[in-house]
Amino acid sequence: MTEVLDLAKRLIAAPSVTPATGEVFDELEAMLAPLGFAVHRFRAGHAPEGPVENLFAIRPGPAGSKHFAFAGHLDVVPPGEGWTSGAFEPKVRSVPGGDLLYGRGAVDMKGSIACMVDAVAGIATDAGTISFIITGDEEGPAIFGTRALIDHMRETGHQPDLCLVGEPTSVHRLGDMMKIGRRGSLNIWLEVEGKEGHVAYPHLADNPIPKLVAMLAELDALVLDEGSDWFQPSNLEITDIEVGNPATNVIPHRATARLSIRFNDHHTGAELSERVIEIATRHGGAARPVISGEPFLTPPGQFSDIVAAAVAAETGLNPEPSTTGGTSDARFLRAVCPVIEFGLCNATMHKRDEAVAVEDLAVLTRIYRRIAMAALAS
Amino acid sequence: MTEVLDLAKRLIAAPSVTPATGEVFDELEAMLAPLGFAVHRFRAGHAPEGPVENLFAIRPGPAGSKHFAFAGHLDVVPPGEGWTSGAFEPKVRSVPGGDLLYGRGAVDMKGSIACMVDAVAGIATDAGTISFIITGDEEGPAIFGTRALIDHMRETGHQPDLCLVGEPTSVHRLGDMMKIGRRGSLNIWLEVEGKEGHVAYPHLADNPIPKLVAMLAELDALVLDEGSDWFQPSNLEITDIEVGNPATNVIPHRATARLSIRFNDHHTGAELSERVIEIATRHGGAARPVISGEPFLTPPGQFSDIVAAAVAAETGLNPEPSTTGGTSDARFLRAVCPVIEFGLCNATMHKRDEAVAVEDLAVLTRIYRRIAMAALAS
Repeated sequence: MTEVLDLAKRLIAAPSVTPATGEVFDELEAMLAPLGFAVHRFRAGHAPEGPVENLFAIRPGPAGSKHFAFAGHLDVVPPGEGWTSGAFEPKVRSVPGGDLLYGRGAVDMKGSIACMVDAVAGIATDAGTISFIITGDEEGPAIFGTRALIDHMRETGHQPDLCLVGEPTSVHRLGDMMKIGRRGSLNIWLEVEGKEGHVAYPHLADNPIPKLVAMLAELDALVLDEGSDWFQPSNLEITDIEVGNPATNVIPHRATARLSIRFNDHHTGAELSERVIEIATRHGGAARPVISGEPFLTPPGQFSDIVAAAVAAETGLNPEPSTTGGTSDARFLRAVCPVIEFGLCNATMHKRDEAVAVEDLAVLTRIYRRIAMAALAS
Repeated sequence: MTEVLDLAKRLIAAPSVTPATGEVFDELEAMLAPLGFAVHRFRAGHAPEGPVENLFAIRPGPAGSKHFAFAGHLDVVPPGEGWTSGAFEPKVRSVPGGDLLYGRGAVDMKGSIACMVDAVAGIATDAGTISFIITGDEEGPAIFGTRALIDHMRETGHQPDLCLVGEPTSVHRLGDMMKIGRRGSLNIWLEVEGKEGHVAYPHLADNPIPKLVAMLAELDALVLDEGSDWFQPSNLEITDIEVGNPATNVIPHRATARLSIRFNDHHTGAELSERVIEIATRHGGAARPVISGEPFLTPPGQFSDIVAAAVAAETGLNPEPSTTGGTSDARFLRAVCPVIEFGLCNATMHKRDEAVAVEDLAVLTRIYRRIAMAALAS
C-alpha cells in the first residue's frame, strides 16, 4: 500500500490545472522508465488552449502478444477556494472508516494513474505489451490531447487490443459501476437576425425574438427517442439565450441562443445537427452545430466480463455497466479499440477537499493488475 | 421672420443635452420677462437623472379670463457624430426650396418654443392669461420634469383651461398632423428561477429557460385589442432576453426577459400588468411592471377644431388628428386640462443635421398666435 500511496502523492504535488505540462509528466516518466517503458512525450497546441503535454509509454511484450492500454489524464480542474489543506499538498487524514488522501486529482484521476503504474510493476514483461496513453488536456477543450495521442499511435504503428480508461466511475463504493459507453455531445448556437427599430413603430422593425421563441418552443418539445438497450433517452437542453438590448424602447436586431444535446446510439451528431438546422431555418434563423463527441458503446461481452471478474474478486461487487454521465476521452479512444472506463469513487471529483480512501488505492491497484493480466491472456 | 429666427438661434446656441439646466433657461427667461411674464425657475432631482431645471412663466390676463398654456422642453437628445456644422452652432443654409436653420433642437423643440414666444409677443395682455410650462427633462427619464411643474402649478393655484404641447407632430409638411392622444407605455421585467446543474444530469437541475420560452410564446400570441376609435391596436414587443450562461455544459439557474407594451384607451397600465403577472406566474416565473404613462386622448371637439382652423388659415391643410408614435409629456399634462400636440416637421428630429425650414418658423408663429387667441376667446 505504501508504494501506490507514494506515487499518488507525487503526482498530486505537481500542480497541473488544464492545460498541463512539465513537472507532473516528469514524475510519471520517472515512474514508468524504471519499469521498462519507452516514454515518448510531446507538446501540442498554443495559448489559450495549449500548449498541452501528452505522454505515450509502451513496454513491448513478446512478438505477437496482446497489447493492453491504460488511458487517462494528468490535468486537473482548478482547485477553487476553501480547502482544508492545500489542493496541491497531498495529505493523509484519518476519519472514521479509514485514512483519506486529500488533494486535487486524488480521484480524478492521478490516484487512478498511480494505481495503473503500481499494477504494472507487478506484471512480468512476458505477459504482453502494455502502454500508457496519458494527456494533459482532458478537463479542457481536449483539442490537443488524446486526439493527438491517437494520431501518434497510428503514425508509429501501435494498436492496442483493449483499452481501460481510469475515470472515477464508482459511485458509492469502489467497484459498483463501470462505464461501457457514453452519450454523444453536441452544442448548437442559434441566431435570428431581424431589423432594429423603435417599439412605438413596430411595423418599421422586424423583431427577431418571437421567431427565436417559436424556434426554441419547437426544439424544447422534441422527443428524440425513448432510450436504447444500454442508454437513457437523448436529451436536449437550452443552455443560453442572449439579446443584449439595454434600451426599453428599442426592438433589437438580433437574438441568439445555445443548445446542448446529449444523445445515445440512436443518433449521430450530423443527423441531429441537420434536424436542428431545418427547424432553425424554418423559423427564419440559422444554426451552427459543434459536435463534441459521438456516442460510444462497448457492448457487454468479453471485455466487460474481464472487468467485472476483476472487480468481483477484489470487492465482491458486480459493477453495473452504465452509460450515464458526461463525456470522457473514451469518445476518442473508441475509434482505436474497445474501451471501458473504471476507476475510483467520484463523490468528491471537481470539488474542494477532493479525497480518495487510501485503502481504495490498494484495491484498485489489484483490480487493474487483474484486468491487465486477463486482457493480455484473452 | 427675423425675430423668431433670432430667438431660435439663441436657444440652439445654448447646449442643453438632457438633463438641461442654466444657460438655455437664462435665454428663455430673458425673452419672456420683457413680455410681462412672471418667471419661476427651480431645479429638481440629482445625478444621474438630475439636476433638472424647470420653468413656469405666467402673464395674467384680466380677472376671470381664460388661461391658455404652451408646454414644451428645452433639453435635447445628444447630437452624435457627423454634423455638417456644429450641433450647437445654429447656421442657416440655402437649399432648393428655401433656407434651413440647422442645429440640435431646431425642430425638437427649441424652434417651436421660439415660435411660442414670438406668437405671444403679438397678443395683447387683456386677451387672457398665458403661461409657459417648460422642462429640461423630457428626452430623459422625465422623473423631475413636467411632473414637478404640475406639482408647482397645483401648489400655486394655476389651472390652465387648455394646453398645447409644441412637439414636432408634422410629418411631410407643416400642418399635416396634430396629436390628439398618445398610447400608454408599460415595460415589464420577467424572471424565472430554476436550479443550476450539469447538462449530463438534467434530472438534478431545473432549467428555467423552457418555462420562460413557453411564457414568452403565450405573451407574444396575445391579441390585446383591434384598436379603438382614435387609436391603432395595442402592441406588445419582447425587447430583451438574457440568461448570461457562458458554459456549454451547464443548465443555468435563472432566465430573464423584458416586454414593452404600447396600449390604447381600451386598457390601463394596471390591468395589463395584472394580465402579464398572471401569465408569468402560471409559467413558474415572476413579472415586475413599470408603467411609463397611461394613454391620453383629447377627443376631437372644440380644442381640435381651434387647432385645425388655425392650421388651415395659415397653410390650407387640414391636420390629421393622430394618436401614433411614442410618448410625450402630454401623458402628464392630460391630468391638468385638455391637451393637444402640434409643431414642426419631425423628419430630422433626433438625427444629425437636424434642421427646420426658416419659413416654417414664421408660419408656426402665426398658427400658435391664432390658437392662443382662439383658445382665450373660447
